[in-house]
Amino acid sequence: MQISERAQVRRIPKRAVYDRETIHAILDAGFLAHIGFCVEGQPFVIPTLYGRSGDKLYLHGSAASRMLRTLEKGAQICVDVTLVDGLVLARSAFHHSMNYRSAVLFGTARKLDDPQQKIEGLRIISEHLIAGRWDEVRAPNEKELKATSVLEFVIEDASAKVRSGHPVDEEEDYGLQVWAGVVPLELKPGRPLADPRLAGEIALAESVVRYRK
Amino acid sequence: MQISERAQVRRIPKRAVYDRETIHAILDAGFLAHIGFCVEGQPFVIPTLYGRSGDKLYLHGSAASRMLRTLEKGAQICVDVTLVDGLVLARSAFHHSMNYRSAVLFGTARKLDDPQQKIEGLRIISEHLIAGRWDEVRAPNEKELKATSVLEFVIEDASAKVRSGHPVDEEEDYGLQVWAGVVPLELKPGRPLADPRLAGEIALAESVVRYRK
Repeated sequence: MQISERAQVRRIPKRAVYDRETIHAILDAGFLAHIGFCVEGQPFVIPTLYGRSGDKLYLHGSAASRMLRTLEKGAQICVDVTLVDGLVLARSAFHHSMNYRSAVLFGTARKLDDPQQKIEGLRIISEHLIAGRWDEVRAPNEKELKATSVLEFVIEDASAKVRSGHPVDEEEDYGLQVWAGVVPLELKPGRPLADPRLAGEIALAESVVRYRK
Repeated sequence: MQISERAQVRRIPKRAVYDRETIHAILDAGFLAHIGFCVEGQPFVIPTLYGRSGDKLYLHGSAASRMLRTLEKGAQICVDVTLVDGLVLARSAFHHSMNYRSAVLFGTARKLDDPQQKIEGLRIISEHLIAGRWDEVRAPNEKELKATSVLEFVIEDASAKVRSGHPVDEEEDYGLQVWAGVVPLELKPGRPLADPRLAGEIALAESVVRYRK
C-alpha cells in the first residue's frame, strides 16, 4: 500500500492523511463500501459490504453478479468508505462543511476458488459486520458456496481525508449574530426486532448484545 | 429519466424499483452521494454532498477540484446514494443481508456559469442538507462564488434497490435455536455543539431545532 498519483488528495491537503493506521481504522469503523469500476468508459458505482484483513478487503455476492464478474477479470477498482460524523454549520454559506472520515483505495481483485479460502473470506466479511455472529449460525453448505463469489481485493494505494471540529469562518464573520457549531451525526443501532418465526423463546444473540454496546 | 441497459438491476430483480417517486424519495432522504467517473479507464469514486430539484442534482466544490473539472467536460457519471436501514440477521450465514434503500443514477453534468444560477444551485444543496439554514447565514460573496464550481447533473436514467423486513431463511433452518431478526440502523443527530467563538449568547438556530425533529 503506497501513495501514488491516483491516490493523491488534491484539494485541501491539510485534510489528507496517508498513514496505514488511519486508513485501516476508517475501514474497520465502516462496513459499507462504494465500489467503482469502468466498463468501456462507463462508470458504475455499487454499494457493498466488505471485510478487511491486513491490506486486503473481501467482497462477496452472487456468482452471477455483473459487478463481481467484471471485477474478477482484473478490472481497475476504486473503493470508497466514508463515515459521516456531523454537519458543520458556519456563519457563512460558503464555509459550511461536513465532519467525516473517508478512505479511497485503488487496486484489483481476484476471485477465490478454493472452498476453504472462500469460507475464510466470508467469515472475515461476517465478523467485520457483526463480530461473533459467524459462530452462532449455520455455516454455508456446498450449494450456497457455489452460488457465492468471494473476491480478494488488494489495496495497492490509498489515501484518506478527515475533517473534524468546529467551522472555520472568515475573521470578520465571527461577530455575526448567527448560531454556529457542529451537529454530530452517528449511525446508531435501534432496538433489535425478533423474527416472528423464531423457534420458540430464544434469547437475543450474544453478538447483537455486544454490537449494541 | 428512463430505464436503460446500464441502469437495469441484474441481481434479485424483486428488489429493483424504477419509479421516479421512489428514486426521488431516496435522494431526498439522503445527503451524501458517491460520484463515480473514469479517467482513461481508471475509476474514481468521490463522496460529495448534493441537492435535488426535479430530475437534476446539484454538486459543488472548489473550482480547482479534479473531480469537478473532469465532470464539467461532459464525462459519463454514475451517482450512488445508499441509505442503510438495518442488519438482517438470518439463521444461516448465507442469508444474512442488509436493509437499505439505494439509488443509482446515470447522466452527465454541466458547469453553471451564470452567478444567479450558481447561487440557486448552492441554495438547493444547502436547503437539501439542512432546511432553513440558507436564510440564517451570510450569502456567498463574489470572491467565494468565483472560487466555487456548481454543477448541474441531469438524471438520464436511474434505478433503485430496496430491501426491508425480516430475514428469509431456508425452510429447514426455521427450526434452529438461533436468534434471528433485524437490528435497525439510523443516522441520528446528537446534541448540537456550539462553536466556542459564538458572538455572545446566541440561541440555537431554528434550522437545527427543526433538523433534530
